[in-house]
Amino acid sequence: MENEETKTVPKSWAMVGGDGPRSYAQNSSYQRGVLDVVNELMNEGIKETLDFKSPCFDSSNVCTFRIADFGCSAGPNTFLAMEKIMEAVEQKYHAQFQNSPPLEFQVFFNDVTGNDFNTLFKTLPSYQKYFAAGVPGTFYDRLFPKSTLRLAYSSYSLHWLSKVPEEVVDTKSPAWNKGSIQCSGTAKEVAKAYSAQFKTDMDNFLNARAQEIIGGGLMVIIILGLPDGILLSQTVAGICNELFGSCLIDMAKLGVISEEKVDSFNLPLYYSSAKELEEIIKNNGHFCIERMNMLNNPMMNRKLDVQFVISQFRAIFQGLLEEHFGRDHVDKIFEYFAKKFAENYDSVFNGATPQHVDHFILLKRNIN
Amino acid sequence: MENEETKTVPKSWAMVGGDGPRSYAQNSSYQRGVLDVVNELMNEGIKETLDFKSPCFDSSNVCTFRIADFGCSAGPNTFLAMEKIMEAVEQKYHAQFQNSPPLEFQVFFNDVTGNDFNTLFKTLPSYQKYFAAGVPGTFYDRLFPKSTLRLAYSSYSLHWLSKVPEEVVDTKSPAWNKGSIQCSGTAKEVAKAYSAQFKTDMDNFLNARAQEIIGGGLMVIIILGLPDGILLSQTVAGICNELFGSCLIDMAKLGVISEEKVDSFNLPLYYSSAKELEEIIKNNGHFCIERMNMLNNPMMNRKLDVQFVISQFRAIFQGLLEEHFGRDHVDKIFEYFAKKFAENYDSVFNGATPQHVDHFILLKRNIN
Repeated sequence: MENEETKTVPKSWAMVGGDGPRSYAQNSSYQRGVLDVVNELMNEGIKETLDFKSPCFDSSNVCTFRIADFGCSAGPNTFLAMEKIMEAVEQKYHAQFQNSPPLEFQVFFNDVTGNDFNTLFKTLPSYQKYFAAGVPGTFYDRLFPKSTLRLAYSSYSLHWLSKVPEEVVDTKSPAWNKGSIQCSGTAKEVAKAYSAQFKTDMDNFLNARAQEIIGGGLMVIIILGLPDGILLSQTVAGICNELFGSCLIDMAKLGVISEEKVDSFNLPLYYSSAKELEEIIKNNGHFCIERMNMLNNPMMNRKLDVQFVISQFRAIFQGLLEEHFGRDHVDKIFEYFAKKFAENYDSVFNGATPQHVDHFILLKRNIN
Repeated sequence: MENEETKTVPKSWAMVGGDGPRSYAQNSSYQRGVLDVVNELMNEGIKETLDFKSPCFDSSNVCTFRIADFGCSAGPNTFLAMEKIMEAVEQKYHAQFQNSPPLEFQVFFNDVTGNDFNTLFKTLPSYQKYFAAGVPGTFYDRLFPKSTLRLAYSSYSLHWLSKVPEEVVDTKSPAWNKGSIQCSGTAKEVAKAYSAQFKTDMDNFLNARAQEIIGGGLMVIIILGLPDGILLSQTVAGICNELFGSCLIDMAKLGVISEEKVDSFNLPLYYSSAKELEEIIKNNGHFCIERMNMLNNPMMNRKLDVQFVISQFRAIFQGLLEEHFGRDHVDKIFEYFAKKFAENYDSVFNGATPQHVDHFILLKRNIN
């Protein structure tokens, strides 16, 4: 089911597996930070917009309600989110039907093939009231049969591009991103290349999901983004990434890693604006926007511990760095980053620097 | 969805993971040995008995055909079997419908939670023409929503009991299996206890699948068994197991492992007769038997290399032994076994000793 383009997602872009101190499972409290707000929004959204008009009952007199989490990583956040979704669906279901026939949930946990599904499965809550399945593969392509999902969810995943845009690491291109590892927003050509890649990826995602979600079905998207008029380079996240990039340059100067390797390294991340997202979704045309909110992660309001930030950073980027720079250099890179980060801590977290945002989007699949 | 009883399946009963020289993936050629014959039987069976009368087309005009492999381990045999099944289904589908609407396959790979799903997913054929999913958990309980599967398959898995019957390791029970590690067939009370456990397990399996498979859907079972009137202790497999058991007793005498540990060790395996299987399936009542064949694995007709036998043995039993005797002792146990096995090789593989069989069973879910 995969085409050549999407196959370029390297497997090591998965979060750090297992449940040890460096794992994503132990370092995903940022992502959990907004869960209370998100739960409330999902709950309201499901209550207001979900309906069971579309045929729900198959040959047996049971409603099978299929949910998929696209980019689930290895838990526990995905389990909490799925629980909350099912609670809201159940409430709506029983409110809509008197003497409602039984409702059975099947929950699909999707992430790239390199994701640690073994840990995901071993940590599945034992009290689960649903049938669980894991689905490996990139969500920029089809993953499910036609019209089989009733609710899709994707949290902190869609800002990961399918690949770094080629131009930004091409020394001959006007979009070459020399001296930076991210789409800071200041270099126009770089921003254009990143934005085009994001648009292509989102469109592929929406087209694939449009096939898989039944008419009237819902999709919840939580994605990193920027407030209107703010560039990534102006935000705490952008400054942290720049600082990390400067560490790589320092280490190239020290001869630990090659300058060429540093030049060819860019983060496959894109922070989108609300306007941009709205445009992509409307142009795509398969979904209507039921809700769109900008959330501020409460985690960002408190002063974060240096070690905490480094741990979260590492759980997310270790795989990517290992692949690019080799496994042996990653420890050194993070040691150096921790030192430089501590030195610059007060200027980064000064309380006045803008923060990125989390976009919450609730979509409904159009009925053809 | 799990109840207390089925939770007693220890996770380490999974085959050896990964794809290294000791993995099940590299040591499952016995199981592949019958695949040609099985493929032929499946092909014929699907052609003769599968029909698409039951509603296949959901809200969209696409037929979603769901297949599950119960006890898939980590490939590659499961991929080959699924391929063959899909080929046969497609042929039948296009023969039955002129201008047939599109057919989409979703294939579920099930095994215990401790199975190496990461390796399974990484080795999925890249040319796959189906949507793949992994399903962790014991197949002696429900794993799928009601009436969602059209074809179930289980190969070399159902002779694994959910647990060793308690009586056979209870020193105070008349069914205590002192001095043996298997259901050799000679001790009546032991055989009764094993047989009762097998009946319970098979019944749980059939009841769970009866819920999950739609009326008219098929189930293929390949399971180790015995020819009529032959006891396990009379077969090559039984003699090998006895030899392995005698190694454990030797090692207890040498003080490497404790006698108590040896006494409390029994293989959770049961080799059933055709008569027994038929009775269980008929009493269960949810399926009718479309075909039942006894296969002789061609692998058993040639003289097997000592190292080959030990490797296959190890890929299957290592997890079980590690759990019971501790990881440190397993290397020693297999070294000793290899030596003793080589010494006894000629008496075991003398060509006159009866072999166990592989039962091939094709079932059809009754339409309620």
